[in-house]
Amino acid sequence: MKRLIYLLPALLFFSVTVIAQRPPAISSPDVHPDHSVTFRYFSKKAQKVTLSGEFLKSPVALTKDTSGIWSVTVPPVKPDIYPYSFWVDSVQIADPNNTYIFANERFKRSIVDVPGDQPLVHSLQNVPHGKISYRYYNSGTLGTTRQLLVYTPPGFNLNGKIKYPVLYLIHGGSDTEETWTKVGRANLIADNLIAQGKAKPMLIVMPYGNVRPSPMPDFTKDMVSDIIPFVEANYPVSKDSKSRAVAGFSVGGGQTLNIGLTHPETFAYVCSYAPYTATEEFKKNFSDWSPNADQFNKQLKLFTISVGTEDFLYEPVKQNIAMFRDKGLKLDTQIVPGGHTWMNCKLYLATTLPQLFK
Amino acid sequence: MKRLIYLLPALLFFSVTVIAQRPPAISSPDVHPDHSVTFRYFSKKAQKVTLSGEFLKSPVALTKDTSGIWSVTVPPVKPDIYPYSFWVDSVQIADPNNTYIFANERFKRSIVDVPGDQPLVHSLQNVPHGKISYRYYNSGTLGTTRQLLVYTPPGFNLNGKIKYPVLYLIHGGSDTEETWTKVGRANLIADNLIAQGKAKPMLIVMPYGNVRPSPMPDFTKDMVSDIIPFVEANYPVSKDSKSRAVAGFSVGGGQTLNIGLTHPETFAYVCSYAPYTATEEFKKNFSDWSPNADQFNKQLKLFTISVGTEDFLYEPVKQNIAMFRDKGLKLDTQIVPGGHTWMNCKLYLATTLPQLFK
Repeated sequence: MKRLIYLLPALLFFSVTVIAQRPPAISSPDVHPDHSVTFRYFSKKAQKVTLSGEFLKSPVALTKDTSGIWSVTVPPVKPDIYPYSFWVDSVQIADPNNTYIFANERFKRSIVDVPGDQPLVHSLQNVPHGKISYRYYNSGTLGTTRQLLVYTPPGFNLNGKIKYPVLYLIHGGSDTEETWTKVGRANLIADNLIAQGKAKPMLIVMPYGNVRPSPMPDFTKDMVSDIIPFVEANYPVSKDSKSRAVAGFSVGGGQTLNIGLTHPETFAYVCSYAPYTATEEFKKNFSDWSPNADQFNKQLKLFTISVGTEDFLYEPVKQNIAMFRDKGLKLDTQIVPGGHTWMNCKLYLATTLPQLFK
Repeated sequence: MKRLIYLLPALLFFSVTVIAQRPPAISSPDVHPDHSVTFRYFSKKAQKVTLSGEFLKSPVALTKDTSGIWSVTVPPVKPDIYPYSFWVDSVQIADPNNTYIFANERFKRSIVDVPGDQPLVHSLQNVPHGKISYRYYNSGTLGTTRQLLVYTPPGFNLNGKIKYPVLYLIHGGSDTEETWTKVGRANLIADNLIAQGKAKPMLIVMPYGNVRPSPMPDFTKDMVSDIIPFVEANYPVSKDSKSRAVAGFSVGGGQTLNIGLTHPETFAYVCSYAPYTATEEFKKNFSDWSPNADQFNKQLKLFTISVGTEDFLYEPVKQNIAMFRDKGLKLDTQIVPGGHTWMNCKLYLATTLPQLFK
């Protein structure tokens, strides 16, 4: 009893100071078994709250109950992981009650995971799991210490005899080195495809691709002169081009072309997803480029460009595909429905992994 | 030239569709050499924007220029890492231009790192770096697969002969398994203290401590029955109590007491930071507790409670310290200035690490 009296001040203090400062704990998003989703937001002062999400054609309004909780339930959506945000009057915000944030430098959006009736390729399944390691490396090119993420597959042994192949996987512009795992679930896609025997055990290295204010060539140099040597000095990996792949999305898809196609002796696999190519580096590298197509086609085991038909870059990507084919390069394409989204990104990666290192 | 024409549509499309949707890229926060900091936010529609931050006694207003950029420069602040947020009219938001988010389930705040003139104990320094690994483990207790983070020190070898000691480090209520690294910089504090020879190389395991809706005892069981066995099955670690420590902050500080003091045969080091103790589990474990103090004091090599004098839990923590001493337990305390903050958390951890596993 004496102890209980001791504890009362803490309880009251906690209630008064902490709970009073915070809005009520509400559940958002709530994903229902039929794949409909309820979103909630608390505000007594807001005049208007709307939901924007990549599962919606246009924003929808939330309605407020008497306690100040705004909510809306959207009809069943196709199982996937989607970015969304609230507009509260004139302010765009992430969902304060959702832990999962889209890793990005320019915007703060939340993500909602709508599971399938059967597990999806990016779902957490009951299979052996690899690890994601956060590492620092010194970039001589950029004169700084940078972070990168390394996925190692289940059973990976730093000191074992197996030499692994490596996929270097680059995020989009304004994304971060965490976007491919936090939003793209690259680690779970790899876990699942490896467990099914569809992909070879490999390392996936996810660097931070943004270099400011200097242009893209600096990241190309960072990749070739700093990142690859760091990985090859610290991990048991094969050091030939047939054991190296580079892939990336959007600005990272453009970086993939710039890095991969100018270094065919380094990468035998070059996989570009919805590449953004309106850069000086791309122009310089490719506008007057006359590759030895026969040699190039022998060096590359896979050169592929993926894009969605609703992607805002669909037309320039088609034009670039034609340009590379005009130059005699063998090039696979993956043209699918969908836009310039991370839903498509996951699909591109899940298609790529089984094609690598065969 | 033909190529340039190809690229023009992409450039225009990108400009129109993407750039038009986004606010201008502005730099926020800008930390100046004198430790003053400028914060910026873009809005043409907001009526009022204020800055709240744990380096401020009260919020300060930003002022708008003619282009819609709101800004304020705060006078020099003590070098540290601070959470902050903007209030835009009635809406509290993270800084949209700052990548670094406070990892938390209930709020979205940004963090600003004000470096010292000399490197601080949590700063990225030119020393060997350990790794942070993101792992999944199966919790039989909770019937689910959960994530935890494992810091391994520089030179760690999974298959080597060295057996490492382990610190189990728990976040605060509504934090996540990432808060100790993203906000608390536990990995860099360990890197720096190990490099200085002040801390022994150790593993730091950072689990996800929140268990809902069930009460705390489930996490105690998860720690003892699931997390420790997972770590000891997968890492080269010593398996005696003198090689295990448990520490945690706030709700995690309460969990630390509940886990550590009820398992003195498992943990010889119990370090509780500003513990929140107004829980049924704490009451049940300790209100009528009559430990064999002599045996207990022999089992524990370190039992310490840390708190700040401005912490809202200062009074109940002092009362709990008195309660444990009344029962004859040897107990070190660390009473410092400061509140219930992650600035203090880093300090507590930096004080703890050199005391462990000696």
